Amino acid sequence: MGKDDNKKMVEDITSMDVDFAQWYTDIVKKAELCDYSSMKGCIILEPAGFAIWEMIQQKLDKMFKDTGVVNCAMPLFIPEGLLQKEKDHVEGFAPEVAWVTQGGLEPLQEKCCVRPTSETLFCDYYQKKIHSYRDLPKLQNQWCSVVRWEKTTRPFLRSREFWWQEGHTAHATAEEAQARTEQMLNIYADFCEKDLAIPAVKGQKTDKEKFAGAIATYTIEALMHDGQALQSGTSHNFGDGFARAFNIQYTDKDNQLRYVHQTSWGMSTRIIGAIIMVHGDNEGLKLPPHVAPTQVVICPIMQQKPGVMEKAQELCAKLSAAGIRVKVDDRDKTPGFKFADSEMRGTPVRLEIGPRDIENGEAVLVRRDTHEKVVVKLDELEQKTAELLEDIQNAMFEKAKAHLESHTFSAVTIDEMEKILDENTGFVKAMWCGCRECEDAIKEKTGATSRCMPFNQEHIADTCINCGKPAQKMVYWGRAY
Amino acid sequence: MGKDDNKKMVEDITSMDVDFAQWYTDIVKKAELCDYSSMKGCIILEPAGFAIWEMIQQKLDKMFKDTGVVNCAMPLFIPEGLLQKEKDHVEGFAPEVAWVTQGGLEPLQEKCCVRPTSETLFCDYYQKKIHSYRDLPKLQNQWCSVVRWEKTTRPFLRSREFWWQEGHTAHATAEEAQARTEQMLNIYADFCEKDLAIPAVKGQKTDKEKFAGAIATYTIEALMHDGQALQSGTSHNFGDGFARAFNIQYTDKDNQLRYVHQTSWGMSTRIIGAIIMVHGDNEGLKLPPHVAPTQVVICPIMQQKPGVMEKAQELCAKLSAAGIRVKVDDRDKTPGFKFADSEMRGTPVRLEIGPRDIENGEAVLVRRDTHEKVVVKLDELEQKTAELLEDIQNAMFEKAKAHLESHTFSAVTIDEMEKILDENTGFVKAMWCGCRECEDAIKEKTGATSRCMPFNQEHIADTCINCGKPAQKMVYWGRAY
Repeated sequence: MGKDDNKKMVEDITSMDVDFAQWYTDIVKKAELCDYSSMKGCIILEPAGFAIWEMIQQKLDKMFKDTGVVNCAMPLFIPEGLLQKEKDHVEGFAPEVAWVTQGGLEPLQEKCCVRPTSETLFCDYYQKKIHSYRDLPKLQNQWCSVVRWEKTTRPFLRSREFWWQEGHTAHATAEEAQARTEQMLNIYADFCEKDLAIPAVKGQKTDKEKFAGAIATYTIEALMHDGQALQSGTSHNFGDGFARAFNIQYTDKDNQLRYVHQTSWGMSTRIIGAIIMVHGDNEGLKLPPHVAPTQVVICPIMQQKPGVMEKAQELCAKLSAAGIRVKVDDRDKTPGFKFADSEMRGTPVRLEIGPRDIENGEAVLVRRDTHEKVVVKLDELEQKTAELLEDIQNAMFEKAKAHLESHTFSAVTIDEMEKILDENTGFVKAMWCGCRECEDAIKEKTGATSRCMPFNQEHIADTCINCGKPAQKMVYWGRAY
Repeated sequence: MGKDDNKKMVEDITSMDVDFAQWYTDIVKKAELCDYSSMKGCIILEPAGFAIWEMIQQKLDKMFKDTGVVNCAMPLFIPEGLLQKEKDHVEGFAPEVAWVTQGGLEPLQEKCCVRPTSETLFCDYYQKKIHSYRDLPKLQNQWCSVVRWEKTTRPFLRSREFWWQEGHTAHATAEEAQARTEQMLNIYADFCEKDLAIPAVKGQKTDKEKFAGAIATYTIEALMHDGQALQSGTSHNFGDGFARAFNIQYTDKDNQLRYVHQTSWGMSTRIIGAIIMVHGDNEGLKLPPHVAPTQVVICPIMQQKPGVMEKAQELCAKLSAAGIRVKVDDRDKTPGFKFADSEMRGTPVRLEIGPRDIENGEAVLVRRDTHEKVVVKLDELEQKTAELLEDIQNAMFEKAKAHLESHTFSAVTIDEMEKILDENTGFVKAMWCGCRECEDAIKEKTGATSRCMPFNQEHIADTCINCGKPAQKMVYWGRAY
């Protein structure tokens, strides 16, 4: 094996400038993140992809628990009657659920669906568990998969089954529910920025785009490398709508019966699609160090020489003891193959160690993000590696932020908006009157949907970009996954 | 609130000597481990129950990964055609699966079932991924729920949906597959004994009791407080049966095409039922310290007195920093209520701290298992608490082991076996000729099934307890959950 193999590996990834969709699929496939299954529309999360999801779970789960959230597990199935209890909710979800009609050898008396989301199950449970103000708040979450019978599917971005967490809370007051809705959105945004190195635009969804049954949906929107938007996490305030439909009441301190106020919030394996499309390049995946299952891969040079493999293992043990996630690539392959392979799989740092390095008491660290090489004294290895990983994490965020900023535009006329979207895909900030008709018209004319009404409002014009009536809100518009 | 409330709480749990099944249900319900749902036959894992499962997951997952196993996620659904590929397997599972026949608004062209177990999905995947001996072994696992449409259900022990892990491996040789099957059984046994404080009888299932499609099934069997057995973890060797049905072949070093050899192994939320029924008493649940989500609950005495609550919080921070899972019960309830509540929920250690203790620089530690009280100097608190938790862990194991030993009997005639089972439920060791007819006959006469052919064989008699022909194996028999 030699240079040809290395080249061949890299050549197999379509250039993102040639065909962004194919580039994406190539990375998913070659980095073995996920695979298609014989079950149409469903994917397999392969070990390399699932390991990223495990890192995400670990970090988010801790952030949730630090705010008092506890985990639980609700049933996979929802009886038809339960799904139908909240009118808006059933209208939103019924057309895309999978129905179980037979259990064992007999038909079911009442068919049930595989959960598309679990609001109705949590409501049913809370209705039984909540009696007094002492039982509040309820702050529960589950990690699971849900099913929505989509027509077209794409790995991570849209599949009939996907993995996520869904948090469901119940509160004594409307204010508390609103505060929790915002708190969880902020957790998602912080996690995206600090751990995934993905800058997030925080805001509220329009009525058209909000969750079925919510009074308000908040979202974080990220911008992919191709200028398309990806909704990356949502947090919903239900007010007392579900509580009224499911009769979830509690006795307050003055012995009055009151309805609870509820929220739900979720982040899914879609976010792995965002990691790929925000950070990846033509060499492959590029993982942010905070969530990289392997942060450092050690590539021994001339590994058959006495002492080289032993030194590689020794450095691995040292770095591991310092809390760094590290592996030795001890396969019987050339260094060139291993370099290309580790780049394709997105490992943030490659450590090269050969006989000459050992003699000099050094190792070479190579950054995945910039390909820069740093020679490091072995007695400073742990500290320098940890610093380098943080540098990479920050540099990746800054790069993504610069991309977001340079791909966010303002428009005051529909023509201007259309032109921007055609030439430089990205977000377009524009004013909106607040009516559904204009939102629909903008989509029809430009292909862009309202991504969110950002918390950071700016005054771009006095009037709606579509109808010319007085503007209510500045909105981020974009084409989206 | 006063003594009456404490009494009332405890009285609500039926005594296990009066009605063991009701005692079990009372604990499940009052300790809020799980709840029934509107979806018939499905349970809700409530936060207190799920927290135990999270502890189990954390520990087992690390044990798996230390042997090279990686996690992944397979689809929830299995197309009918895929389920039917291995003859024995489909016969075993088809009668109890849930069928999805409609997706969205349209009927499915091919119906699919919700996975009852995922051998067929892993085989389908391995068939695509395995080409060369370099691709072996494959060592994958998933944490998920599976569905089996049972007629009668009981919390944790039998429900239509349950949570588990299922590991699936593929190997180049029969020897490697056999070694992996045994390795994973040993992991389950070690975990049970060291972390759950449950002694396990290791052995092989008879052909009648083995998994559908396996050439050999190994099991760990635990003995509940009422003398009934509970199968607590299984490990299966499939030989190359699935490989032939799914055509999973690899090219070996000599360029020959060969079938892989496969295994699977699983442990489920049933094991929480075992924790309840091995360790619990008439005060409630009794959690082994290694898997107790809360190991120490701090109960402030005269908590309204200045300095008491602050001291409780300070001790909580100290113990937490020492790696102990600890909480302050700061509710507005009497100490008596809190004592009974923490006993019912099974927290291994209660720490009492009041004004006099603070003055003396002491705290009182109370063991859940023996109710013993120990006065501890505050400057030794972390060390003494950690030691006490280990003492409790060991004492719980020794107690369970003594129960297992005193409830394991030998029999040489069927009458003897029947008498033992009627008077002292427990395991009966008896010889068996190896034929299915005798196994069926023994079940009919005594109500006991063969639990396993233990690895530790003993010679009890020369002949089969039923037919009198030469004995092949010593078998553990028992009535089982």
